[in-house]
Amino acid sequence: MAEPATATQAAAPAVPQLKDELDIVIPTIRNLDFLEMWRPFFQPYHLIIVQDGDPSKTIKVPDGFDYELYNRNDINRILGPKASCISFKDSACRCFGYMVSKKKYIFTIDDDCFHDAALWNVYCDFIYFHLTKVAKDPSGKAINALEQHIKNLLSPSTPFFFNTLYDPFRDGADFVRGYPFSLREGVPTAVSHGLWLNIPDYDAPTQLVKPLERNTRFVDAVLTIPKGTLFPMCGMNLAFDRELIGPAMYFGLMGDGQPIGRYDDMWAGWCTKVICDHLGLGVKTGLPYIYHSKASNPFVNLRKEYKGIFWQEEIIPFFQQTVLPKDCTTVQKCYIELAKQVKEKLSKVDPYFDKLAEAMVTWIEAWDELNPTGSSVINGKAK
Amino acid sequence: MAEPATATQAAAPAVPQLKDELDIVIPTIRNLDFLEMWRPFFQPYHLIIVQDGDPSKTIKVPDGFDYELYNRNDINRILGPKASCISFKDSACRCFGYMVSKKKYIFTIDDDCFHDAALWNVYCDFIYFHLTKVAKDPSGKAINALEQHIKNLLSPSTPFFFNTLYDPFRDGADFVRGYPFSLREGVPTAVSHGLWLNIPDYDAPTQLVKPLERNTRFVDAVLTIPKGTLFPMCGMNLAFDRELIGPAMYFGLMGDGQPIGRYDDMWAGWCTKVICDHLGLGVKTGLPYIYHSKASNPFVNLRKEYKGIFWQEEIIPFFQQTVLPKDCTTVQKCYIELAKQVKEKLSKVDPYFDKLAEAMVTWIEAWDELNPTGSSVINGKAK
Repeated sequence: MAEPATATQAAAPAVPQLKDELDIVIPTIRNLDFLEMWRPFFQPYHLIIVQDGDPSKTIKVPDGFDYELYNRNDINRILGPKASCISFKDSACRCFGYMVSKKKYIFTIDDDCFHDAALWNVYCDFIYFHLTKVAKDPSGKAINALEQHIKNLLSPSTPFFFNTLYDPFRDGADFVRGYPFSLREGVPTAVSHGLWLNIPDYDAPTQLVKPLERNTRFVDAVLTIPKGTLFPMCGMNLAFDRELIGPAMYFGLMGDGQPIGRYDDMWAGWCTKVICDHLGLGVKTGLPYIYHSKASNPFVNLRKEYKGIFWQEEIIPFFQQTVLPKDCTTVQKCYIELAKQVKEKLSKVDPYFDKLAEAMVTWIEAWDELNPTGSSVINGKAK
Repeated sequence: MAEPATATQAAAPAVPQLKDELDIVIPTIRNLDFLEMWRPFFQPYHLIIVQDGDPSKTIKVPDGFDYELYNRNDINRILGPKASCISFKDSACRCFGYMVSKKKYIFTIDDDCFHDAALWNVYCDFIYFHLTKVAKDPSGKAINALEQHIKNLLSPSTPFFFNTLYDPFRDGADFVRGYPFSLREGVPTAVSHGLWLNIPDYDAPTQLVKPLERNTRFVDAVLTIPKGTLFPMCGMNLAFDRELIGPAMYFGLMGDGQPIGRYDDMWAGWCTKVICDHLGLGVKTGLPYIYHSKASNPFVNLRKEYKGIFWQEEIIPFFQQTVLPKDCTTVQKCYIELAKQVKEKLSKVDPYFDKLAEAMVTWIEAWDELNPTGSSVINGKAK
């Protein structure tokens, strides 16, 4: 658990499930050498690479991977004025990949831009990506993160009542005594949130206070986050059903020209959870683990997070109290309604939320333009 | 994980925490030989043994344990007519022990009455107790269940927002990025719900369908069950803060003369969770594991559970929708209010709930008689 897997340990791929139904989205600013480590698991799948930063730079992708790559010029060309909703110089740009995908499922993972502060100006224009490697389970076996995400997404969630033996759909588990039979069918799973061994996903203050803390605890569990409960969704190791929840996976306005960073995935997580709860969809967290080997710079992080630390104290109660009207029967309708409420209730926190609410609407317009047939759900069932 | 610990493995007791502040409550109908296995962990503590069934039978307790024992005659003598609220011929009788305790904390565990159907008439008057042994963690070390429960109870809970790395108060863990700082103090923990390796706590239908299923998955996690979420609380391996939540830990009317069994702990769990949510108290589940070595008879269980399988479909929505008025500032007031609502809304399900609602009131009267100074809380703070 204390070390990442080696390429050899990861060399035994399972049969690639959902090969033609899943895209892997990777935001990057540099050559994707890190893919070598993931090759046994990722090579069967199509990659969507969102190149952030200088579009004149050439990103090298290792041979043998099937991919499409979009740089800022591509984003501007494809979205026109609506490109304003896609963040620049921030990993939030990844959500462009969700929009252009034509697949049912998305798995997104961070690339491995080296982000030591001292190397900032040497290697990176800006610092945000995480060094993610293949993790090992307690038996030493390399964890095929994607395979576990697919398992999570293809089995139902149970948001209405807590099962004390965790995911009842895993091998060797079931619903325990006292679990209502009428709830055992579960609901469709929209999101699978994976975790990280080694460097935990801490905020800057916690990083500063506990620079040496490492996550060595392999918790062998997947669980549904109950209805009505919000959680901090991390974008480092995340999969979702694009048809069920895609339009809610907007990573907001971060980075270049924005007063905030490192809240892109949090924002998407809050919006997504509220909409999943409203539409009767499930969100799972737990397995799979990836190995997160290099912490980002806490001083840089503090600068980015600074406002968010205050704002989240008002944003979270806002989302906890959000009620979506019954006629919001699709993700798009829910999201437009959320944008309206953000404008009404959060713009008093900071004018930024006015801008964000407008970007949320632009995002949905752009989504619908690129996905004209729609991918709406009504109460957990695809139209 | 696949086998219980031996006495030798369990022979290294930690310093006994809360020695004078915790009682171990054990319901039983026979000699307590099973205590030998738990000796290294339990001997420093005081035991309250609730003898169920024939009061003329002598229960032998292994030498060296400090205990008080109550049989049915004692219960009748102490409670007078109010003894009617204490179940007979059912492990629900254990809650009498909670009432007579003078300690702040309770740990309750099942004894080891052998409950093979063929032996029913030979060894037991009735069949319900579970064979609980000391479990081993993945490294082979005997698990001191009581020590882990104490850790769970002495550290705060976090019911208002989900922490993806589970209990943030465990060594090596913390709150992750995006967790609001204003919620990091947590709230007092009222209940610690432990789990079971080997025989899972399944209902009769699941037992019948999966007779060979064993729980071999050691999930190294403790987590707070979020506010607003109900769970199936099992009484086999349970600890709680009597001062914070004791009066809600009523195990209902089960067994002799009642139309239902095996819902004693479920009932207590639903009531407790609703009241904890109202008063701002926490409920944790996960570690510690005990080893549950012998399944109870699924046919006997089906007979006991039969009505409950139907009833829980109405009981659970009832508890999910229960709102307690603001002036319910103590556990007792909450519980009396719950009794009122049970009478109003569940008696249409079956006349049994009328009787149960009355017993709930009797229970509180008896509790207050035996605990005259009260052990009430106001919003999570002891008065």
